[in-house]
Amino acid sequence: MTSLTPPTALTSLLGLELPIIQAPMAGVQGSALAIAVSNAGGLGSLPCAMLGLDALRAELTAIAAQTKRPYNVNFFCHAPPPPGAVREASWRATLAPYYEELGLDRGATPAGAGRAPFSDEVAELLGEFRPPVVSFHFGLPSPELLARVRACGSRILSSATTVEEARWLESRGVDAVIAQGLEAGGHRGMFLSEELTTQVGTFALLPQIVRAVGVPVIAAGGIVDARGVAAAMALGASAVQIGTAYLLCPEATTSAVHRAALLDRSRRHTALTNLFTGRPARGIMNRLMRDLGPMSDAPPPFPLATAALAPLRAEAERRGRDDFSPLWSGQNADGCKAVPAAELTRELAAGASAQS
Amino acid sequence: MTSLTPPTALTSLLGLELPIIQAPMAGVQGSALAIAVSNAGGLGSLPCAMLGLDALRAELTAIAAQTKRPYNVNFFCHAPPPPGAVREASWRATLAPYYEELGLDRGATPAGAGRAPFSDEVAELLGEFRPPVVSFHFGLPSPELLARVRACGSRILSSATTVEEARWLESRGVDAVIAQGLEAGGHRGMFLSEELTTQVGTFALLPQIVRAVGVPVIAAGGIVDARGVAAAMALGASAVQIGTAYLLCPEATTSAVHRAALLDRSRRHTALTNLFTGRPARGIMNRLMRDLGPMSDAPPPFPLATAALAPLRAEAERRGRDDFSPLWSGQNADGCKAVPAAELTRELAAGASAQS
Repeated sequence: MTSLTPPTALTSLLGLELPIIQAPMAGVQGSALAIAVSNAGGLGSLPCAMLGLDALRAELTAIAAQTKRPYNVNFFCHAPPPPGAVREASWRATLAPYYEELGLDRGATPAGAGRAPFSDEVAELLGEFRPPVVSFHFGLPSPELLARVRACGSRILSSATTVEEARWLESRGVDAVIAQGLEAGGHRGMFLSEELTTQVGTFALLPQIVRAVGVPVIAAGGIVDARGVAAAMALGASAVQIGTAYLLCPEATTSAVHRAALLDRSRRHTALTNLFTGRPARGIMNRLMRDLGPMSDAPPPFPLATAALAPLRAEAERRGRDDFSPLWSGQNADGCKAVPAAELTRELAAGASAQS
Repeated sequence: MTSLTPPTALTSLLGLELPIIQAPMAGVQGSALAIAVSNAGGLGSLPCAMLGLDALRAELTAIAAQTKRPYNVNFFCHAPPPPGAVREASWRATLAPYYEELGLDRGATPAGAGRAPFSDEVAELLGEFRPPVVSFHFGLPSPELLARVRACGSRILSSATTVEEARWLESRGVDAVIAQGLEAGGHRGMFLSEELTTQVGTFALLPQIVRAVGVPVIAAGGIVDARGVAAAMALGASAVQIGTAYLLCPEATTSAVHRAALLDRSRRHTALTNLFTGRPARGIMNRLMRDLGPMSDAPPPFPLATAALAPLRAEAERRGRDDFSPLWSGQNADGCKAVPAAELTRELAAGASAQS
């Protein structure tokens, strides 16, 4: 059936059979989901921001062993925050009542960033594996690091949330731009501004970026089924990147409380929140977001907010509660289905065939 | 060329040739734009919220004389706010430095609401004209008033910004629901919640509402050209409602400063703001929005914020400045063209033909 899908500028460039990119989603998937999507003819993605070097090597080894098709590895490229003991202490004080409620010892909270930016060591490792595609979130790494990725022969993608960001990425030589509409789940890729009013819905963002840049444009945000794929192609997309719809697939590692929230039709209210990491990301409203307000001055800068929440999250989840868990989701969870990722990928791609 | 456009559930219901609805836009258009769009085969709309009874009668008379095609008249149905002398005084104090800067006498500021909700008197007048379509913003009027509109034989539309609002409207008997995505310019139609995080982009909102209700769904928000129309139809819309793209048409009464802002590609940053009326509405960022922040506790409740701004706006516009003017616009002004509304309507409808 996939032979009916016509090639686009992007599928030709990346050697894909289908114009479907599975969005990298740190914390809810590893190589298994990426392998399934790539083997189905789409582009599977491995989220690497939360992987240490050994774990990254293991995942890349698994992918290389299990697919001969193109795949994508995704990295964050934030600037690590300056030391901020005061804000860290204030954040822990904000969370203290929850520690007390759950009977946890505040002294035992771990420190550390949790998410690391793209680095020399990672570039070195990529040189061994030469991944067909490397995508970035929060802009791009330094020109020197980017040149090392290019030298691997990898195609380079990055996300734009505004026309200005798309032009910035194109001028630095990305092979395609991901237009990340406001509907998207997880972290906003925004990097030229922190002002949330600059963030634009997919219907408005996608055609403006298509018009502004010469490279192929990948649509992301609110696309959950074949009709959404057809609509994105009608607006000029060369491919679509889809995350939320894959969260219930058996190959994803989505937690039980996260799966339950996605399946609950009474919980379709999402919001951008900086509580879980320090940067705005879209997730389903839960207790922490309601208590503190989804956007807050309380958490320390990205990615430091996560550490102090970790014990709360673990203990609450142990009790079957999602009070402190990031429940990443886009604004439309209607596409979530507990079916194998290959089946979902082919269903989504039917929208691209319909468009030809 | 329009004979190629296939009928949809909505065009059949309303007797339209083209599935294009010109969005009612109070303050920037009157009957001339509505007549031009209706005569081109779309549904022209007359915004009535800022018209007194005499002006409304004059506009309805003009429409009846100049088109035999279906047209739409649009009303707000907010509850008038309780008296609030304190907030009014505080708002005027906030604006006092601007009065001083422009050399205006604060004592001379007018009072009054500026925008009136649908009423008995208006229903009476509609009985004389029996408009083919009546649309509402901010929910629906009382069941008694709504019954009087129905008794005129008018088809009834209203805007939903969430799935819950769409279900609420369907249960009260609207003939079609307008799914107003977050990208849309002007006032958010939200009426079941004041929480802005409930507001959803068109790509996510439209298919969820199509799935949730049995009546035809009209897509609004970020649709600016034939490709956008095709995309909305792919997502299940029976028609589209388009506002921003019409703002430069010669039949619109868009002010000079507003036209200039729409044409300036460096001014594509819009935001939801409650400064101009008291309710959130999307417009291009200007001085007042930057100075006070676009969403603020300063203005009194809708629609009382407008009166105290009126002298500032008039004097600034006289000097060619848009510092205090609401520059309503959706998140994509790429579709704005200074061409006759009939020509624009036919161009937009080409996207619907392409979809058949």
